[in-house]
Amino acid sequence: MRIDTAGLEILRRAECLRLLAAAPIGRIVFTDRALPAIQPVNFTLHGADIIVRTAPDTKLAQATRDSVVAFEVDDYDVYERTGWSVTVVGIGRAVTDLAELAELRTLPLRAWAPGDRAHYIRIETDIVTGRRIPG
Amino acid sequence: MRIDTAGLEILRRAECLRLLAAAPIGRIVFTDRALPAIQPVNFTLHGADIIVRTAPDTKLAQATRDSVVAFEVDDYDVYERTGWSVTVVGIGRAVTDLAELAELRTLPLRAWAPGDRAHYIRIETDIVTGRRIPG
Repeated sequence: MRIDTAGLEILRRAECLRLLAAAPIGRIVFTDRALPAIQPVNFTLHGADIIVRTAPDTKLAQATRDSVVAFEVDDYDVYERTGWSVTVVGIGRAVTDLAELAELRTLPLRAWAPGDRAHYIRIETDIVTGRRIPG
Repeated sequence: MRIDTAGLEILRRAECLRLLAAAPIGRIVFTDRALPAIQPVNFTLHGADIIVRTAPDTKLAQATRDSVVAFEVDDYDVYERTGWSVTVVGIGRAVTDLAELAELRTLPLRAWAPGDRAHYIRIETDIVTGRRIPG
């Protein structure tokens, strides 16, 4: 087990991707008018990419076009005081290619919030890090 | 009930602070070498300020000194597909005043991760926003 300077177990990439694939909700971290911003979203992994649906006119859609974003999932147990987190840093991209859009529309990904969700955001998982509080 | 452009219920400040006070885990959003970064932490509310403990030499301690940060808490129900999130944007400050440190050390705030946690970060809750997925 590898431990970082904060005393947390460093998770391997394969373990991070396994946890990412199983998480129902993640949080996109981006910049909104020069301020740090964060928004929870449901998502799916497609290959090694994170796919998020939103409406084309949302702040999230605007702020994640060709911008570096972080994407985080975690799970904590309040009683045991343990848990883990996985963070991806990558380029957010608005999907505009028609063939790619047609492919993504076949995914079992339905936004939890109401309304139109025709806009797809794709984030490549180039940089993936994970930590777990040792038991 | 006020609804935003994404179809989510807009929570009032008092409701946001109530949810913040009851959440065991939050996520600090900051900038690390010009890249977006996020780290889950346990915390406590002291008055209207968020208090976090960490080690003095951590990335988190370094990156939150006199910097604008975001702080997020949320809770989602996967089966009901509902949930809420609250986000604070404010200045992160390293607590160095001895009287203030003595006061914060009396708080029931113990970091979940092992190791020294002598460094206190204080974030004022100036800007507080919250959203809930309508049931």
